[in-house]
Amino acid sequence: MPLTEFSLIYRYFSALGSGAHVELSVGDDCAIVQLADGERLATSVDTLVEGAHFFPDTFPEDIGYRAVAVAVSDLAAMGARPLGMTIALTLPDSDELWVHAFSQGVAQAVAAYGIPLIGGDTTRGPRTISVSVMGALPAAGALLRSGARVGDEVYVSGTLGDAAAALHFLQGHWQPDAHSAQFLLERFNRPTARIQLGQQLLHVASAAIDISDGLVADVSHIANASGVGIELDPQALPLSSVLQRHIDRKQALTWALTGGDDYELCYCIEAGRDAPSGTRIGRVVAGEGVDPGMDLPGRPGYQHFGQDH
Amino acid sequence: MPLTEFSLIYRYFSALGSGAHVELSVGDDCAIVQLADGERLATSVDTLVEGAHFFPDTFPEDIGYRAVAVAVSDLAAMGARPLGMTIALTLPDSDELWVHAFSQGVAQAVAAYGIPLIGGDTTRGPRTISVSVMGALPAAGALLRSGARVGDEVYVSGTLGDAAAALHFLQGHWQPDAHSAQFLLERFNRPTARIQLGQQLLHVASAAIDISDGLVADVSHIANASGVGIELDPQALPLSSVLQRHIDRKQALTWALTGGDDYELCYCIEAGRDAPSGTRIGRVVAGEGVDPGMDLPGRPGYQHFGQDH
Repeated sequence: MPLTEFSLIYRYFSALGSGAHVELSVGDDCAIVQLADGERLATSVDTLVEGAHFFPDTFPEDIGYRAVAVAVSDLAAMGARPLGMTIALTLPDSDELWVHAFSQGVAQAVAAYGIPLIGGDTTRGPRTISVSVMGALPAAGALLRSGARVGDEVYVSGTLGDAAAALHFLQGHWQPDAHSAQFLLERFNRPTARIQLGQQLLHVASAAIDISDGLVADVSHIANASGVGIELDPQALPLSSVLQRHIDRKQALTWALTGGDDYELCYCIEAGRDAPSGTRIGRVVAGEGVDPGMDLPGRPGYQHFGQDH
Repeated sequence: MPLTEFSLIYRYFSALGSGAHVELSVGDDCAIVQLADGERLATSVDTLVEGAHFFPDTFPEDIGYRAVAVAVSDLAAMGARPLGMTIALTLPDSDELWVHAFSQGVAQAVAAYGIPLIGGDTTRGPRTISVSVMGALPAAGALLRSGARVGDEVYVSGTLGDAAAALHFLQGHWQPDAHSAQFLLERFNRPTARIQLGQQLLHVASAAIDISDGLVADVSHIANASGVGIELDPQALPLSSVLQRHIDRKQALTWALTGGDDYELCYCIEAGRDAPSGTRIGRVVAGEGVDPGMDLPGRPGYQHFGQDH
């Protein structure tokens, strides 16, 4: 039997769309979701393309999990509560095994983040996955990029540079021991969207962003949007024990500053105010741009990232 | 200057994201949109892939317009009021001219349907366009596929079969006169999402769907979801004057019954109740499946469409 759009969607995904606030899930022209009175809708979309955002030989389960986590991370960076998501799935052919494994990873992310899959579209073409997420924000408050003020302290969750180290390994430049390899692949393939932290920061942080392109690049968005400068302290950057043990310190710090795909949150908090968690890595200053605090390969010292990103 | 994701988005699309209810548009981790108290969120996603859903030589302006109209049509079929949309755009390279023309078509659809473009993602890869739409439904009421009752009358908006005739022409099987060609291409490239009609039908129609796959196929979704049968009257099907004048009647009716891409609304209304507009084309009966009322090529008379779609 050819796998048509409908049988694909129904067979693998129909169990993932339930939730107390989900009035109607997959199966009609639209899904219907309830917000509480006064709540506002937060929405974002992220696309992964085979070859560009994941390797063709990546386990489809990991691709499914990662696609959801990457998109949900944008809700985390706003402090939003997940409401639901849709997945637009373009596949080269009726690859039933691939879809089955992919759906397992999606299901794991649905459970991890409590975000029901409420709709989708499947089309024939080069493998591309586009995840649209919808979340709820309370009547007031949101973690914007534009709220950082001079004197604020800059924090980051988790550890940085792990995904860059994983890429280095996946590209064949380095062979870590089995334990380290597993840790790094997990960090790359199964990033943790910081949904709970985002909501804890809602009326605490002055600005926030998730780290998808690299700390310096992403922090520069906060600096530009807020009209401030940001000074980072490289010696304060949180590194995993794997990076601390196995990677030259300068290399590890470079990955922590410029490597993408970590999906940690970076956020600014008024000096003297307690952060719910995270590591203090810098401060907001008058001026513009980001000072990474060390020379970066191909980038002579202090950089203005605002114009070319 | 290389066209990075951010410059692409900002240069062409940033002007399209405004609206009284749009609190935050393109430029942060998420967009923020306000719903009225009690309103529910309706959402859907539609993907167009080059080669499968549009010809590589289609004007990018038409692709942009059509991608939005096709997605907005799902909001129309629910009776939802457009709130906003995001576009996930995958492009083979930094094709500035293509993006410029594409954005013109998107802008025309934004204006036509009053749906602001509030976010997006641009990635490198084979040309694929995925549009996620969000709409608002009042506290009660929605046009579902599942509400049709025995005795209801079945209506359709506009005319049917025009997009199929246009495809026949685009594939080189027929050369219509210039006036007819222009009409048909307009119908195919610039479908009219019936947003206003959908909202008028909200507390009038018992069920509705938009016609994307073909009348018989889409009506079968209403029949299946509602647990009823539907009998169509082919002689009642509304045909444009171009199809009436230039196409053999049996061929025209076949296109009207099976051709997709018309994006008209098909809806059921209790017998005796006035329809706000449209043509009466059939009735809801006890039973299951759809009786198209005439033999269709490759389909011996009465069909059950429920299992293979």
